[in-house]
Amino acid sequence: MPDVSILSEPDLRDLLSLDDDIVACVEDAFKALATKPVVMPPVLHLEIAEANGEIDVKTAYVPGLDSLAMKMSPGFFDNPKIGLPSLNGLMILFSAKTGLVEAVFLDNGYLTDVRTAAAGAVAARHLAPKVVKTAGVMGTGVQARLQLQAAHLVRPFEKALVWGRDFDKAEAAASDLKKSLGISAEAVDDPERLVSESQLVVTTTPATEPILSADWLHPGLHITAMGSDQDDKNEIDPLVLQRSSLVVCDRIAQCELLGELRSALAAGAIQDQSSVVELGDVVSGKHAGRQGDDDITFCDLTGTGVQDTAIATFVRSRLEGTDTGTTLSV
Amino acid sequence: MPDVSILSEPDLRDLLSLDDDIVACVEDAFKALATKPVVMPPVLHLEIAEANGEIDVKTAYVPGLDSLAMKMSPGFFDNPKIGLPSLNGLMILFSAKTGLVEAVFLDNGYLTDVRTAAAGAVAARHLAPKVVKTAGVMGTGVQARLQLQAAHLVRPFEKALVWGRDFDKAEAAASDLKKSLGISAEAVDDPERLVSESQLVVTTTPATEPILSADWLHPGLHITAMGSDQDDKNEIDPLVLQRSSLVVCDRIAQCELLGELRSALAAGAIQDQSSVVELGDVVSGKHAGRQGDDDITFCDLTGTGVQDTAIATFVRSRLEGTDTGTTLSV
Repeated sequence: MPDVSILSEPDLRDLLSLDDDIVACVEDAFKALATKPVVMPPVLHLEIAEANGEIDVKTAYVPGLDSLAMKMSPGFFDNPKIGLPSLNGLMILFSAKTGLVEAVFLDNGYLTDVRTAAAGAVAARHLAPKVVKTAGVMGTGVQARLQLQAAHLVRPFEKALVWGRDFDKAEAAASDLKKSLGISAEAVDDPERLVSESQLVVTTTPATEPILSADWLHPGLHITAMGSDQDDKNEIDPLVLQRSSLVVCDRIAQCELLGELRSALAAGAIQDQSSVVELGDVVSGKHAGRQGDDDITFCDLTGTGVQDTAIATFVRSRLEGTDTGTTLSV
Repeated sequence: MPDVSILSEPDLRDLLSLDDDIVACVEDAFKALATKPVVMPPVLHLEIAEANGEIDVKTAYVPGLDSLAMKMSPGFFDNPKIGLPSLNGLMILFSAKTGLVEAVFLDNGYLTDVRTAAAGAVAARHLAPKVVKTAGVMGTGVQARLQLQAAHLVRPFEKALVWGRDFDKAEAAASDLKKSLGISAEAVDDPERLVSESQLVVTTTPATEPILSADWLHPGLHITAMGSDQDDKNEIDPLVLQRSSLVVCDRIAQCELLGELRSALAAGAIQDQSSVVELGDVVSGKHAGRQGDDDITFCDLTGTGVQDTAIATFVRSRLEGTDTGTTLSV
């Protein structure tokens, strides 16, 4: 049997960080989803209520890629009480030709963070107005920082605004963004102000009640909501989807179960999915995307297995010719 | 973060092989399935038609066990053409309290082989007649050998009969069983003879058309069918299920999709699942199981996530205090 490469989170952090190449790789994955017979089964969801935990499994086979990933993402939300992170996980890379295990990425969720941010950049590239001077983020965690870093790769804005329920955390995130992006960044305590002053807004919270009101919409705004990935989460006022010129989902079949589309359908703000477009259709040019500077566009990201297969395959290509990680005979 | 143990197939073969302890551990898992709020999501199935391949993911959370397994089983059926085995895979052991990865078992399907055989032993213990003089197996692969080894732990029969489409392979399997069990073993070319001379029959083939006819049934027979785990497989004449005194499934919801129960329902041989019992109900005493020596009993095994969690947790307990495998900081 061929050897298996085992990489730890530090190995993976050495090997790659969010950059244009990763955004391009995730963009290609969405293009494949729209143009090739990608096989992407529904998410396997294991609930461990006793421990306030869950594990999701995502996967996809992308024709043309020699490998495919299976990604396991545990979320155990009492972990912070004992000093452990809530989110963890790993990815397994299989040969798409023989099913043999090629690599185990013990990334503690790092690759998920990166591929999730990269999807935000893909959405921003194809949906945000050409010129973004100010970008806002609602949320103050790892993904809040990464989403604005990703968006900055494709829309090099001059100013970042950060809102969070905890103002101190918003200030910390703004300070980090100021350093990492070399731009001005400010924590705001009024989310309406954040939305009204931004051309691009990303929401990255685990909210179960809307934190972004449709009353705050203005021409020339793009919103990407990436917080909702379960059927009890909801960041966005359902009327936002109704009033947007264009609603885009990473995967409609998944967003209607786990994303903002679910809440909008439940509220009757959207009658059906016929007006909704998939991100891959926009990336591939099947759908035109933003039509004019004054459009209001909305993108619902729940996270897809093609992104996992894309980034895991990307890691494999970066790995070739290096001696990173541990190699085991199995 | 705590360290992660990585074990290869040779490590795992050194650590455990099919024995009474493993049968007891899998028996406990079936008992838990019947008596505790086990969480066992439907199998995730990824089809890679281009490569004549598939990967299944199974998992279960068993209250009372500190860990849980996620098991990935690739089957790539053109592999033998290039000298590789069709079946492979690995298991990941997670803490059921924090979701952290505890261990990676790169077992190439070895643990699946063992836990599958152990389920056969559990079925035989609770369903086969008290005295089994002759046991027959239809099929000539790894699982044919393991199933009779497992059955012999609970019903120490004197003679084994082996049937396969390829008589040479049946002879090889019989020869192996003769050595490993120290009993008489014979390859037969007539499956009817195998069934009529046996009190216990196990079918272990990937057949898509019945290989065991209901005309061959006789009082005091127990049959375990473990070959069908996909919706196109079928080893058993649907009338066998109709004519059996008792039909038992490892998991009814899974067997009606993937097992012999599926074919029997499709053929109208069984009207509904109300007469069918789960193995866990028999193990836990909720259902009496075999009522008398002349009963004909049938057990449909499709393979369940609780078995994976059970054996992976068992490996973990065997591992404690040894220096087997590789330990990585992640």
